[in-house]
Amino acid sequence: MEKLSPQIRHQLAQYQQAQQQAQMLINQRQQLEMLLRETERAHEELSKLPDDNVVYKSVGTILVKSNKAELQKNLAEQKETLDLRVKTLERQGERAVQRLKEMQVKIDEALKGQKPGEGMAS
Amino acid sequence: MEKLSPQIRHQLAQYQQAQQQAQMLINQRQQLEMLLRETERAHEELSKLPDDNVVYKSVGTILVKSNKAELQKNLAEQKETLDLRVKTLERQGERAVQRLKEMQVKIDEALKGQKPGEGMAS
Amino acid sequence: MEKLSPQIRHQLAQYQQAQQQAQMLINQRQQLEMLLRETERAHEELSKLPDDNVVYKSVGTILVKSNKAELQKNLAEQKETLDLRVKTLERQGERAVQRLKEMQVKIDEALKGQKPGEGMAS
Amino acid sequence: MEKLSPQIRHQLAQYQQAQQQAQMLINQRQQLEMLLRETERAHEELSKLPDDNVVYKSVGTILVKSNKAELQKNLAEQKETLDLRVKTLERQGERAVQRLKEMQVKIDEALKGQKPGEGMAS
Repeated sequence: MEKLSPQIRHQLAQYQQAQQQAQMLINQRQQLEMLLRETERAHEELSKLPDDNVVYKSVGTILVKSNKAELQKNLAEQKETLDLRVKTLERQGERAVQRLKEMQVKIDEALKGQKPGEGMAS
Repeated sequence: MEKLSPQIRHQLAQYQQAQQQAQMLINQRQQLEMLLRETERAHEELSKLPDDNVVYKSVGTILVKSNKAELQKNLAEQKETLDLRVKTLERQGERAVQRLKEMQVKIDEALKGQKPGEGMAS
Repeated sequence: MEKLSPQIRHQLAQYQQAQQQAQMLINQRQQLEMLLRETERAHEELSKLPDDNVVYKSVGTILVKSNKAELQKNLAEQKETLDLRVKTLERQGERAVQRLKEMQVKIDEALKGQKPGEGMAS
Repeated sequence: MEKLSPQIRHQLAQYQQAQQQAQMLINQRQQLEMLLRETERAHEELSKLPDDNVVYKSVGTILVKSNKAELQKNLAEQKETLDLRVKTLERQGERAVQRLKEMQVKIDEALKGQKPGEGMAS
């Protein structure tokens, strides 16, 4: 890093920051995907049960008695919400990766541009 | 770091320690805020239920049957306690950030003061 | 690292990558082993209960009433699946460790080969 | 580190390893203490309930109906087991800290012994 121009060092710092943001988007998406799969599994499991099967839902540290129809509706809504958020994070993630590629190209160009310049000066 | 005076190195070490403490306060606050939101959600969910709805509360690995009125009281108390602790951590966090800013100013001054002094000595 | 030949640096980079993969296999196996032990414990606990004991299973955020026979079947299947996956990860882990040992030998040879070579050249 | 004798470097490496082991003992103790507090809280909560209160215990992903007397017995045993393990980890932790202090003294002596030696040689 010592020999790099301030401009390239700035670009590398920005690249690193963009990389962290991209990683954060990926982590968030993975967490929501896990939640989505869990919700889908609960939805499927519920659909196999008789309509009068005793069911509860947990909210924080409490459990409340519910019924199949009510929970099916809840889980379907949850699935939709999670699916939408996963898709949004997917798009944001793709844009972030695209941005990283563009930054990479610019940094490569800047690094190539620097060396001959130094060579010419010596 | 090699060229810094022992005093500045000491200030930097203290700054780093203060930064870790500030981060710890922020992490604690975030965890309690999450717990608070979960408690609020349970409280709301419960308030929508009929008074005779079967409800349980979980304590560690056990579940005990309770009733709506009892749980409403429990959750309201929990909300109050968590809210108070979040506010305390907020205040402590603000003071920690303020302290960091003041340390930053002193370190900047010490760093500025060091260089001319070295220049004058040479 | 500065003085190492490009080939050895490449070997070391590959070694590091293989090490990370081996670590990932170990972590996955440990998580599944924990899940397996938990499932075994649930299976044992269940087998001690009378056949008509009221039982629930949790799926995500919901709890559905079930019965001992049904859950015994579920848990036995889960145990089998987890056991199989743990064994697969064990085999993959052993192969990964074997691969690391072979890479280590090659790197040691390359490092030994380099120094006398440099010595002879000077 | 560059200027340290191989023996001191070996001592420092051992010190670092002992530090990691001490940290691991502390982490384990903290986790068990948390589990102990949770078990104690469940035990207290249970003792306040009428003898015929409906109670469940969770084992992995299943919930089985139980009764107050049975769970009181379970939780009391759990408390005892956890308490014993916490105390064992406490003793091991104290020994580890003591060992670290002794290593620190030896390293300090070795570092003091090295510098005059080098000074006398020059």
